[in-house]
Amino acid sequence: MTVSPLAPKFSVTLPPIRGARLGAIEAGIKYRGRKDLSVMVFEQPAQIAGVFTRSRCASAPVDWCKRHITGGVARAIVVNAGNANAFTGAKGVEAVETTARAAAVALSCSEEEIFLASTGVIGEPMDAGAFSGKLNELFETADEDGWADMAGAIMTTDTFAKLATKDVQIDGARFTINGIAKGSGMIEPDMATMLSFIVTDFPVSSECLQSVLSDRVDETFNSVTVDSDTSTSDTVLVCSTGLSKTDSILPVTSLSDRRLVQFSDALRNVMHDLALQIVRDGEGAQKLIEVLVFGACNNVAAKVIAKSIANSPLVKTAIAGEDANWGRVVMAIGKAGEEADRDRLSIWFGDVRVAVNGERDPDYDEDAASRVVKEQEVRISVDLGLGKGSARVWTCDLTHEYIAINADYRS
Amino acid sequence: MTVSPLAPKFSVTLPPIRGARLGAIEAGIKYRGRKDLSVMVFEQPAQIAGVFTRSRCASAPVDWCKRHITGGVARAIVVNAGNANAFTGAKGVEAVETTARAAAVALSCSEEEIFLASTGVIGEPMDAGAFSGKLNELFETADEDGWADMAGAIMTTDTFAKLATKDVQIDGARFTINGIAKGSGMIEPDMATMLSFIVTDFPVSSECLQSVLSDRVDETFNSVTVDSDTSTSDTVLVCSTGLSKTDSILPVTSLSDRRLVQFSDALRNVMHDLALQIVRDGEGAQKLIEVLVFGACNNVAAKVIAKSIANSPLVKTAIAGEDANWGRVVMAIGKAGEEADRDRLSIWFGDVRVAVNGERDPDYDEDAASRVVKEQEVRISVDLGLGKGSARVWTCDLTHEYIAINADYRS
Repeated sequence: MTVSPLAPKFSVTLPPIRGARLGAIEAGIKYRGRKDLSVMVFEQPAQIAGVFTRSRCASAPVDWCKRHITGGVARAIVVNAGNANAFTGAKGVEAVETTARAAAVALSCSEEEIFLASTGVIGEPMDAGAFSGKLNELFETADEDGWADMAGAIMTTDTFAKLATKDVQIDGARFTINGIAKGSGMIEPDMATMLSFIVTDFPVSSECLQSVLSDRVDETFNSVTVDSDTSTSDTVLVCSTGLSKTDSILPVTSLSDRRLVQFSDALRNVMHDLALQIVRDGEGAQKLIEVLVFGACNNVAAKVIAKSIANSPLVKTAIAGEDANWGRVVMAIGKAGEEADRDRLSIWFGDVRVAVNGERDPDYDEDAASRVVKEQEVRISVDLGLGKGSARVWTCDLTHEYIAINADYRS
Repeated sequence: MTVSPLAPKFSVTLPPIRGARLGAIEAGIKYRGRKDLSVMVFEQPAQIAGVFTRSRCASAPVDWCKRHITGGVARAIVVNAGNANAFTGAKGVEAVETTARAAAVALSCSEEEIFLASTGVIGEPMDAGAFSGKLNELFETADEDGWADMAGAIMTTDTFAKLATKDVQIDGARFTINGIAKGSGMIEPDMATMLSFIVTDFPVSSECLQSVLSDRVDETFNSVTVDSDTSTSDTVLVCSTGLSKTDSILPVTSLSDRRLVQFSDALRNVMHDLALQIVRDGEGAQKLIEVLVFGACNNVAAKVIAKSIANSPLVKTAIAGEDANWGRVVMAIGKAGEEADRDRLSIWFGDVRVAVNGERDPDYDEDAASRVVKEQEVRISVDLGLGKGSARVWTCDLTHEYIAINADYRS
């Protein structure tokens, strides 16, 4: 598998976060010659928050996490790649319970403090018995430098591991936010079609964490799309070990605590970074496309229109073919179903305005527009000329490679 | 351009319809060496009904037709291929007016009796002056056997001309319904992403014609999708010359006239035939996919779910790869946003039940399922187990050829 041409140029090493250890092993769930079972374990109970797929056919691990996230406390996260444990009926529920029980026994904690995620093929019964016996060893050998190891072990069709870290100073004390993610296909966020696990040493209650996460997911993970397909397994978990470098810090437990604003901004950075990495690893992606819509009646309408453009196969193939085909952008705006006035529209490729007042720009320069779409990163901007609503989403082009990957992924 | 492997095995010859003549010429609008300007002309004013794209960025000819369809009377339909005259601002309106005026002068009728359609590239200004002078000659040379000629002249990325005819006996008298259509990409019906022109000698008023057309479009043209992209130019026009073979027939002018039921069934046949031909010519199509959803809460929910399956790039690429990947069908049901209960779902590929009660069928037979997806026509059925709503939609697979066609259509 060749690495996506859009992969970050430099790899990032994640610093340790006090109280969190990570590890991965080869459990032979589906793949051979690579690690596919991984854990994140917390020395002391961590505060946890999560957002999950809105699919009506959610996987068994998503059901499990949704049920227990309200408890707000985590001792471990267990993730397997190769089998999504989705649409697996009673056997799927059993596999989840077997795994949670084995992890809880190993860590002497309650099953409700174990969070689970599975990614891979849908509909294959998963034999958790085959790997739950390995959890004990995995928890013991996990270490604080295991971030890259776990980021690698949660991959499926991903071509590179996705890691991000951010340092944040709050009231003079330094904190870290580390995150990993996976995702490449079946990516249309609602919530965000992928797995992501984020940990911080900033001491913050699960309620505050949930509030910040829910607030920030819309502009990050929910603003990327690869192929408009929403997974059954989307999961983002954010944990706080609370074990900050400076022990004297009082934990944030109130939504009006102003320290939460700085933390929220830093968390947004990490989430945005990881979300963009997912698009950069979109199946078959050769180009990163940013769609900016403004002048809409409201933000919701702007996002619907931006998504309509970003999900249009004709727009995406045009960019793949380096064709500044803004007519297809017009089509995608028109079909979105939101308020739009053809004769007030303006469209840009990069900084080149190609259309204005409902027709081709009088100064339209085909060569200039072509130069824009030859770049590896292309921005399409749309001014609807109606109001103050705006939205920004990211996607990738639709290429032969997407077809090649998906026409024989399972077989 | 190779003809789609799904093209009808036998070509059909359309019989003449009294009072309708058709013709086409090479006007050099965009293509070279093929006819691209065509007309349908009525000896006596015909009754006309129409349905059009719901795009908020509809083309200038669509705007024109919408404005005049309420008049209910047509003397001619003028169609050009190669330029959609969409998003062309004031120049686009001017081009439409120039064409309508030239046609009206040639036929000594009012401009409101001229209907127009354009298909091709969006956003290129169209020079109607260059071809409106040719309309006079075109009207004169048009003849009653020109159906294939016009069906060929309205094609863009189509690989075969689309024609259908149906004889219908009503109260002992015989009538004919002839239809032609074009469409291959930018096909997601709402109303129906294509052009289609249908003519009958059955004497029926424009009001009754409109009622029958609006009623039948949902289960025909609006139930096919190629790529989920809705065109700016979708147009279906149905005309009655009223010049039946037996002159003594009283025209149908009331919606309660029971003859309308038989006519409606026959019209549905022609519309269904043409709609399926459009899917069979879907860009890059190698397989025809029928998606049947039943047991839904209601018909609307069933259709939303059927469309979600039919538009999923992951489902479409799986079929292209002859992979009976029903997990992706589960995903598409889950993301549709309509009521669904994972544990009541059943899914079939052809007659092979692959999933039942929220998990893989206990008698699942991979070989049997694989044989189904190796066929040229694949049916996917879903029983939601909730209610009595059902819907049926048709689509095609998503192949390398779709990418090849769309990554350099305009350039």
